[in-house]
Amino acid sequence: MISAALHFKQSDAAGLKADQEALKKEWQSGASGYYALPDSQSAMLGDIETFSKKTAGFDTIIVVGIGGSSLGAKAADRLLRHLPQRNAKNLIFLENGDPLDLSMAIETINLHRSFILIISKSGGTIETISIFKLLLSKLGKSEADNSCAEQFAFITDKGSPLDALAQNNLISRFHLPKSVGGRFSVLSVVGLLPLRLAGYNAEKLLDGAKAVRDDFFKDDPLGISAKADFIAKSGKAINALFAYSNSFEEFVKWYVQLWGESLGKLNRKKERVGFTPVGLIGSVDQHSFLQLIMEGPLDKTVTFIKLLDFKRTISVPAISFKGLEKNDFINNKPFDILINSQADATLEALKSADIPCDMITVDKLSESNVGGLFFYFELLTSLVGVKLGVNTYDQPGVELGKQILEKKFKLG
Amino acid sequence: MISAALHFKQSDAAGLKADQEALKKEWQSGASGYYALPDSQSAMLGDIETFSKKTAGFDTIIVVGIGGSSLGAKAADRLLRHLPQRNAKNLIFLENGDPLDLSMAIETINLHRSFILIISKSGGTIETISIFKLLLSKLGKSEADNSCAEQFAFITDKGSPLDALAQNNLISRFHLPKSVGGRFSVLSVVGLLPLRLAGYNAEKLLDGAKAVRDDFFKDDPLGISAKADFIAKSGKAINALFAYSNSFEEFVKWYVQLWGESLGKLNRKKERVGFTPVGLIGSVDQHSFLQLIMEGPLDKTVTFIKLLDFKRTISVPAISFKGLEKNDFINNKPFDILINSQADATLEALKSADIPCDMITVDKLSESNVGGLFFYFELLTSLVGVKLGVNTYDQPGVELGKQILEKKFKLG
Repeated sequence: MISAALHFKQSDAAGLKADQEALKKEWQSGASGYYALPDSQSAMLGDIETFSKKTAGFDTIIVVGIGGSSLGAKAADRLLRHLPQRNAKNLIFLENGDPLDLSMAIETINLHRSFILIISKSGGTIETISIFKLLLSKLGKSEADNSCAEQFAFITDKGSPLDALAQNNLISRFHLPKSVGGRFSVLSVVGLLPLRLAGYNAEKLLDGAKAVRDDFFKDDPLGISAKADFIAKSGKAINALFAYSNSFEEFVKWYVQLWGESLGKLNRKKERVGFTPVGLIGSVDQHSFLQLIMEGPLDKTVTFIKLLDFKRTISVPAISFKGLEKNDFINNKPFDILINSQADATLEALKSADIPCDMITVDKLSESNVGGLFFYFELLTSLVGVKLGVNTYDQPGVELGKQILEKKFKLG
Repeated sequence: MISAALHFKQSDAAGLKADQEALKKEWQSGASGYYALPDSQSAMLGDIETFSKKTAGFDTIIVVGIGGSSLGAKAADRLLRHLPQRNAKNLIFLENGDPLDLSMAIETINLHRSFILIISKSGGTIETISIFKLLLSKLGKSEADNSCAEQFAFITDKGSPLDALAQNNLISRFHLPKSVGGRFSVLSVVGLLPLRLAGYNAEKLLDGAKAVRDDFFKDDPLGISAKADFIAKSGKAINALFAYSNSFEEFVKWYVQLWGESLGKLNRKKERVGFTPVGLIGSVDQHSFLQLIMEGPLDKTVTFIKLLDFKRTISVPAISFKGLEKNDFINNKPFDILINSQADATLEALKSADIPCDMITVDKLSESNVGGLFFYFELLTSLVGVKLGVNTYDQPGVELGKQILEKKFKLG
């Protein structure tokens, strides 16, 4: 169960109906394929299940991918890793071409006992392909021939160079559904496959997402439309996501990519628009970022996330230190109460300083809730994208750097 | 060796002399004690050395602390952990009152083989004191009596409740030097002690910091003053720190606290001022945040950090995939070249979009360079603080939330 409360003045003319229509149009026109994932990927679950048997003998699942190819599954695993269904396999993400981290990872991992997923939408991501070559070489292979079939699988767009490579060498391959960009792909095979291999129930992830989607298109009980309307018109440049649980530390990074890369761009009038996402963890970042929110420029909105059931109860022992009796109010109480009261108190403090806030409450960390949270933020992003007049689903601004990089090497 | 290049138009009137004077005044007046740390803490090194012998028999060092009590040492350990002098001890930071993470940590750690540092400047941080009680209880103790002396040490302000507790029970204690706030304390015993216990050379950390400080007060070869002048006058709300090495992932969090909490506040005219810090890791965040920088609002400055020697050389194997020949430009070349060329290419792309950038180049990850980097950002923060007319060293904005929290419990 996910619930939400908005602590800012909602516009009367928020226009839920029009918002629903705008998003339905994106869905039906195929502008983005993510809307359909809870249904379309449901048909993939059988294939994923069959495939997961193939990896039973491996200790480790390595995901080679970067950005949208890794952030979603990484976020979900961090949120859910304490659940009993999580199997004992290591799930390792090789993302960056950092030579120190890469060599330390390779020294530690037993590659021969690892099943390796190569994930690249375009099929040509320079970091991913380079790390793929490195792993092949460490496995004593000089090409991606059909000896790779037992240990590798690719997830890529149909017709990409990686797809052709798989086909020519009988390597297992999965395709991203049509028009699903990397940052909207966690509920496709890109996220579902690694998560299933780690033991999670992929169907429940989709079910949770579907419920949030269908509720939105019915009467939007979470107020996603009102929130998008507020943010788009607020004039606030920065949107902080302040989650009161360490388990969200990778989720906030997924949010940063989704929000920054979807909305930060030229709109139809060629104006630079977008908002800067900031991911925070409470109460830790009360000791870091809160001062700036409270007394710095009024250029921020803050979304809190609170978790009701942490699945482990641990209480503050009834020990009293002389001179520190003021801290005894929490004695004998569970740490949940401390951290959630800190979330509530911080929200109240922000409200008193006229900073627009909202609170998302999650009853527990389950596959269904995690699927729902992903979809909540995806819908929010799409709504704000419509209001800003941007193409939410492209990322033209990252091309120039790639071109300069290639030119450097051609000249060098 | 740290070097720096500024890729924005520097003001002719940057006024290095006046800036040096302003900071010297803060140093001499004792407005902040951090300026003196490279000298004053040097006198502590003997004590730290003697103390470190005491922990020789422990497998694990636990630091209980949050915000400025943990971020600095955590950042330095992440940057330096690959060095041969890093001993085999686990260095674990217990920061947040997250019941799930806390219980999982406690199930994993052998507490009886752990030496525990309790770090709180005020001596009364609610998370820190509560976790301290939890550890005592798990060790079978019902109070902090003198049986704790072998396994605990406290770092706190002289005269704090924690200080009195140590004194009354013969527990080892270290004091923060006068007027050193948490976020400026990494080069005091707060950072130096845990880092020494993990095997690092504390003296070299101080030496590196001292060199950056003394160079600044001579002729500022790194251009810290010009950079501070630009940022303070730029009208840019957001300052991104984009480090091209995974090793900086905790360092950028340290920067976020330093920058956000020092500058985000009411200035002397009671205006809300400050800048929003954003920590990024390259090339990963080229796939996440770069789109927003390139095409979103022109409200950002970007500082790149590039590392020349990653200490491990690992090259992209000369494997060519049919259809992916465009990626072969990096074949046979070390990954260092890839990641550093990505940094250079991204900087060039940003410059072409008129986004103010600068590049800090670090020749290698050494204690001396890490000490230097800490001091570089501390000086930068102090300079911008002077220009904004804020008290860089307090954090009044976090008090309200604490008061609301306490009230909630008194009423509840």
